[in-house]
Amino acid sequence: MKVLEDRIREEGLILSDTVLKVDSFLNHQVDTALALEIGREFARRFADKPITKVLTIEASGIQFAMAVGIALQVPFVYAKKKKAVTQSEQVYSASVHSFTRQETYQVTISKNYLGPEDKVLIVDDFLATGAALVGLVQIVSEAGAELAGVGCVIEKGFQEGRGLLEQMNVSVESLATISKMAPGEIYFQEPAKVLVKETV
Amino acid sequence: MKVLEDRIREEGLILSDTVLKVDSFLNHQVDTALALEIGREFARRFADKPITKVLTIEASGIQFAMAVGIALQVPFVYAKKKKAVTQSEQVYSASVHSFTRQETYQVTISKNYLGPEDKVLIVDDFLATGAALVGLVQIVSEAGAELAGVGCVIEKGFQEGRGLLEQMNVSVESLATISKMAPGEIYFQEPAKVLVKETV
Repeated sequence: MKVLEDRIREEGLILSDTVLKVDSFLNHQVDTALALEIGREFARRFADKPITKVLTIEASGIQFAMAVGIALQVPFVYAKKKKAVTQSEQVYSASVHSFTRQETYQVTISKNYLGPEDKVLIVDDFLATGAALVGLVQIVSEAGAELAGVGCVIEKGFQEGRGLLEQMNVSVESLATISKMAPGEIYFQEPAKVLVKETV
Repeated sequence: MKVLEDRIREEGLILSDTVLKVDSFLNHQVDTALALEIGREFARRFADKPITKVLTIEASGIQFAMAVGIALQVPFVYAKKKKAVTQSEQVYSASVHSFTRQETYQVTISKNYLGPEDKVLIVDDFLATGAALVGLVQIVSEAGAELAGVGCVIEKGFQEGRGLLEQMNVSVESLATISKMAPGEIYFQEPAKVLVKETV
């Protein structure tokens, strides 16, 4: 998605070989017009799948799940990172290790809002190690729901996330894939073709 | 906002005299069409103020800040609840006590995304004790930005939040104000008129 790559080039801050900061327009301050455009692009890429629900994880996935939900006219659900006092009913859960924050947390979704009748598109802001997205994929599977695929705004193509998801037979679409970066330089690759392997 | 009150009556779960769960359509699973309608209603109520930025707090305010940002065609910023590794620059911060979670956390916003040039509308899902919103108002003041007001989706009118905000001369608009609730019953009040006091 050219407009996104251009914006990353203009405003992204590369803090190290692995850390890219895009919080001026994606995940702290949010350019609502760009977020809507991102939502429409995901909707276009998964147009052949009958999606009934968008799934993401709090907090930085919410604006993109909302945008895709708007484009597809379906609700979205965001997984929570810890059990709140008001979340008393049964939940699906998965453990996720955050390499950015160096901590393992529990991701939970109420069983009321995900079930075998759902056809789910998972979206998030970043695909890097894939930890959070693998957790969401596990939850979709546990719920007996059908997974249409995973959409990531920015993929760090040099990290293991896509490989892990493809091993699980998950179709992955990223809008900007970084092949390499270092302070002062960033390279994007053409969107990789999705590899759907046969289940053994 | 009648459509919202009706939905709360239909789907809200009243867990106690103070805890209302609306996570089937507002803050876990999100009805995107309703969220957009909420955004348009806030835009309408603050139409006389020249707003340049919407401000909220992660996570459950994001969908409404996004909706208002769409309606007003401005960006939004969401305050973060703890300092992330990638958040190294200077931040505005405020301490907030969560009565739901029984913990005090730090709310932070990068100084890059809020300043004297901004005219800010703060939005959030709930106004109850007002702790989080008072923290955001303090940050807007610290940034030297102009505050257009605070918009809350649901106000618990029997708690102290509105009073605290009005003491700070803040204009508050709530889309559904609960005057009283208990398991099995809920009462809404007409939107209270905003009391803007003179600064002493």
